[in-house]
Amino acid sequence: LSLSLSKEGINAKTSTQGITPHVAFLHLFPASLCLSLSLSHPHTHTPTHNSSSREEERERESSGSWEMTGDGAAAAGPYEHPYVPRDLVLPGFVPNFLTILDIFTPYATASLLVVALVWLLSGRSPKLFKTDRVIMCWWAFTGLTHIVLEGYFAFSPEFYKKKTPHYLAEVWKEYSKGDSRYASRDSAIVTVEGITAVLEGPASLLAVYAIAAQKPYRYTLQFAVCLGQLYGCLVYFITSYLDGDNFSTNSYFYWVYYIGANSSWTVIPTLIAIRSWNKISAAISMDKNKKMQ
Amino acid sequence: LSLSLSKEGINAKTSTQGITPHVAFLHLFPASLCLSLSLSHPHTHTPTHNSSSREEERERESSGSWEMTGDGAAAAGPYEHPYVPRDLVLPGFVPNFLTILDIFTPYATASLLVVALVWLLSGRSPKLFKTDRVIMCWWAFTGLTHIVLEGYFAFSPEFYKKKTPHYLAEVWKEYSKGDSRYASRDSAIVTVEGITAVLEGPASLLAVYAIAAQKPYRYTLQFAVCLGQLYGCLVYFITSYLDGDNFSTNSYFYWVYYIGANSSWTVIPTLIAIRSWNKISAAISMDKNKKMQ
Repeated sequence: LSLSLSKEGINAKTSTQGITPHVAFLHLFPASLCLSLSLSHPHTHTPTHNSSSREEERERESSGSWEMTGDGAAAAGPYEHPYVPRDLVLPGFVPNFLTILDIFTPYATASLLVVALVWLLSGRSPKLFKTDRVIMCWWAFTGLTHIVLEGYFAFSPEFYKKKTPHYLAEVWKEYSKGDSRYASRDSAIVTVEGITAVLEGPASLLAVYAIAAQKPYRYTLQFAVCLGQLYGCLVYFITSYLDGDNFSTNSYFYWVYYIGANSSWTVIPTLIAIRSWNKISAAISMDKNKKMQ
Repeated sequence: LSLSLSKEGINAKTSTQGITPHVAFLHLFPASLCLSLSLSHPHTHTPTHNSSSREEERERESSGSWEMTGDGAAAAGPYEHPYVPRDLVLPGFVPNFLTILDIFTPYATASLLVVALVWLLSGRSPKLFKTDRVIMCWWAFTGLTHIVLEGYFAFSPEFYKKKTPHYLAEVWKEYSKGDSRYASRDSAIVTVEGITAVLEGPASLLAVYAIAAQKPYRYTLQFAVCLGQLYGCLVYFITSYLDGDNFSTNSYFYWVYYIGANSSWTVIPTLIAIRSWNKISAAISMDKNKKMQ
C-alpha cells in the first residue's frame, strides 16, 4: 500500500508541475497573496509535516489501532496530522500529496482563464461599463469557487482520508492548516460552506448573466449574494473567536490562509453591496420623482 | 440559601401573576402558538423538573461537588437541569422561578403595546398604505425582540445560574428546553444571536423609520434585514441537524419552541424579502424606461 501511494504521489506531482505559474498575472488574484508570500518565504511555505518526513511516514508501519485519548497526543491513524489543536483526532488521515504550489497553480490558472473569458466576452456589449465588466469577472470567479471548491468540501466529509491524490481533497487538506475546523468538520463551518456552495454559488453565476442582460433585479441579486458572503464571514470568524481561535498550525497559516484567503470575501462584497445599495436608492428616488411629476 | 431562594421565587410569582393575560389578543402574535398549545395541554406545558419537585430540589442539599462524568448522568450542581442531551453539564444551574405563563404574558403584553402604538401613530400619515403599516408593526416587534431578548442572551453567558428571578434569564432558561444549545452556549447559536441582536435589531427599528419617512433605501434595508434573519435561521437549523438534532427536552418543546417559535422568522422575512425584491425591480425598470425616453 505504501509503495503504490508513493508512486501515485510522484506521478501527480510530475503532471501538475508541467503547468508553468504565470506569476506576473497573479497580483490580479485575491489568493495570490498566498503564493507570493510562500515564494518569498520558502522556509515557511513547506509544511513541517508533509515535507522531508512524508515518505518516511508512509513507510512507517503502525501495529495497533489508534483510539481517542484526549490527552493532548495527536493520534490520527498511521499518519500524524499537521493540524492544531494537537489533540484533534482524525482517524484515517492521509497527508498531502501535492505541495502548496501544485495546489495553488491550477486554481490560479483556471481562475485567470475564467476572468479573461468573461472580460473578453463582456467587452462585446456596448451597454456595459468597465466597472460592470470587472464585477462580472468577480462573480464568475467567486461563483465557480463556491460551487467547485466549497461544494466539494461541504459534501465530502472524508476528504482527509483520500488515499489517492484528489485535487479538491488536497485543497482542503492544505487549507485545514489555516483552520483545522475544516478537517474536524465543525458544524458551523459545514453549514456556512454548504449555504455558500448551494445558494451563493449559483446566485453568483446568475449575477454574471443578470448584469450582462441588464435585468432589473441585477443590483438586488448582487446585494443579496454580498450579504450572504458577509454573513458567512461573520459566522466564520466569530465562531472561531468564541471557540478559542486556536485552529491554525502556526502564525504563517493563520495570517495567509485564515485571514489572507478570506479577506477578499469581506472587502469585495462590502464594496459591491455599497454600490448596489446606492444604485437601488438612486433608482427609487428617480421613480418617486417621476411619480410626483 | 435554599430558604431565601424559595421566598424570592414565591414573591416573583405573586408579583407577575397580577398581570391578567389578554388571551383574546394573543392570536395576533407569532409566539401565541406557545401559549395556546400550553393552555390546551396542561399536562405537557409544566416542565417535569420545575413543577412539583422544584421546592424539594431547592431544599435538597448536595454534599459533594459535581464533576464532568460524560457517562449519561446529568450533573449540574445542586439542581438537576431539565435539558437534553442528559449528559450536558451545567455547573451552577438554577431552575426556572417563573412558569411559562409568567414568562409569556409580559412578552405578549409588551409586544401588543408596541404593535398598537406603531399602528396608531402610522395611521396619522396619509402616505402610508395599510401593508406598510402592518410591516412597520412587525419591524418594531422583531427589532425590540432582537435587541432586548436576544441581546440579553448573546451577552449573558451565565444566565442559567441566576439565583434571583431575572425575567430575561427566565425566558432563556425556558427556551433552552426547546434547544439546549442556548444553555450549553453553542458557538454557532451565540454567533447568530449576537449578529441578530447587534446588527439586525437596530436595523429593524431603522426600517420602521425608513418606511415612515419613505426613504429611498427603505426596501433595500428591509431586504437586508430579512436576508440576515433567513441566513440566521438556516445556520440555526442546519447546525442542529448536523449535530444530531437532539437538543429538545421532549417533542412538545421541539415542536412548540424549536420549530413553532422560529417559524415566524422564516415565513415573514421570506414574504417581506419577496415584496422588497419586487418593489426594487419595479423601480429599476421604471428608471430604465425613463432614461430611454
